[in-house]
Amino acid sequence: MDFDLALSIDVLARTPGALKALLGGLAEPWVRGTEGPDTFSAFDVVGHLVDGEETDWIPRARIILVKGEDPRFEPYDRFRHRARNAGRSLASLLDELEGLRTSNLTLLRSWRLSAADLDLPGMHPSLGRVTLRDLLAAWVVHDLGHVAQISRVMAKQYGDQVGPWVPFLPVLTDHPVPRS
Amino acid sequence: MDFDLALSIDVLARTPGALKALLGGLAEPWVRGTEGPDTFSAFDVVGHLVDGEETDWIPRARIILVKGEDPRFEPYDRFRHRARNAGRSLASLLDELEGLRTSNLTLLRSWRLSAADLDLPGMHPSLGRVTLRDLLAAWVVHDLGHVAQISRVMAKQYGDQVGPWVPFLPVLTDHPVPRS
Repeated sequence: MDFDLALSIDVLARTPGALKALLGGLAEPWVRGTEGPDTFSAFDVVGHLVDGEETDWIPRARIILVKGEDPRFEPYDRFRHRARNAGRSLASLLDELEGLRTSNLTLLRSWRLSAADLDLPGMHPSLGRVTLRDLLAAWVVHDLGHVAQISRVMAKQYGDQVGPWVPFLPVLTDHPVPRS
Repeated sequence: MDFDLALSIDVLARTPGALKALLGGLAEPWVRGTEGPDTFSAFDVVGHLVDGEETDWIPRARIILVKGEDPRFEPYDRFRHRARNAGRSLASLLDELEGLRTSNLTLLRSWRLSAADLDLPGMHPSLGRVTLRDLLAAWVVHDLGHVAQISRVMAKQYGDQVGPWVPFLPVLTDHPVPRS
């Protein structure tokens, strides 16, 4: 599948609603369970996605679109949400994600990006040269990867409850070395 | 996390809405893309979940609750949906899943299962003896595993579009030998 801006925005626009459907009002054991020490819970993932709205995708797209001599991205802090969201409720984070995503997609649509714009370069602090197209496609894949992660982390909370079904439920044994 | 019937039903009740939020009205390339030959698309997974409502979880729970001498489950056909849903739209399958799930959870709640009921045995055609508790926990994990799968399969449609970002987006390289 080739990159398509409208098809990308259609996926990005759905993530907050899908996460509200999956997680809104859900009991704490599902929401706060992790895959082990130093891995993300569903709550943590929603906070990480909020961080992405504030510090990653659109801020980096802006750096590219300025077309300056040094389109270098700020490094991204994958653990910013931990201090930021201590004491926050999941419901408030889900609302915040929805608001930020709506604003960011409104801005993205307003840019009316051309194919030439999508070829513009940015400089990632560790990956090197990337294009705006790469960045926007990575945003979509990042969302989908984290929706998959939330479902996997929730499934693992019942890892000891399915009796002999484990080999038929591979989500339970995905990522034996957990990652956040 | 120990098995809890109310917490299980709360997850099971969310799946159709979460899938509608993620997939309803989405363009065909996202919905029909797979991980390779003989693997499931998002459309296929929704059909597989419909099959589960009709032929797997509740029918097997009924077999257990009859408390007969031979609580043996019917084998489950993981590919029943392929012939069944040829020509169907995703929208109609999502509606069907929602209707079947609602009916099945109404029935499950009406049983007012006790801890002793949850210990009742069934005989799985390949896994052997299981309990009703195992079966219901496996239903929850099965849902979550397939939500994760849908997100992963969608993400992989953009596998060639993210430039150098691949190592930072592990969902793209999960399951190098795809499975359905």
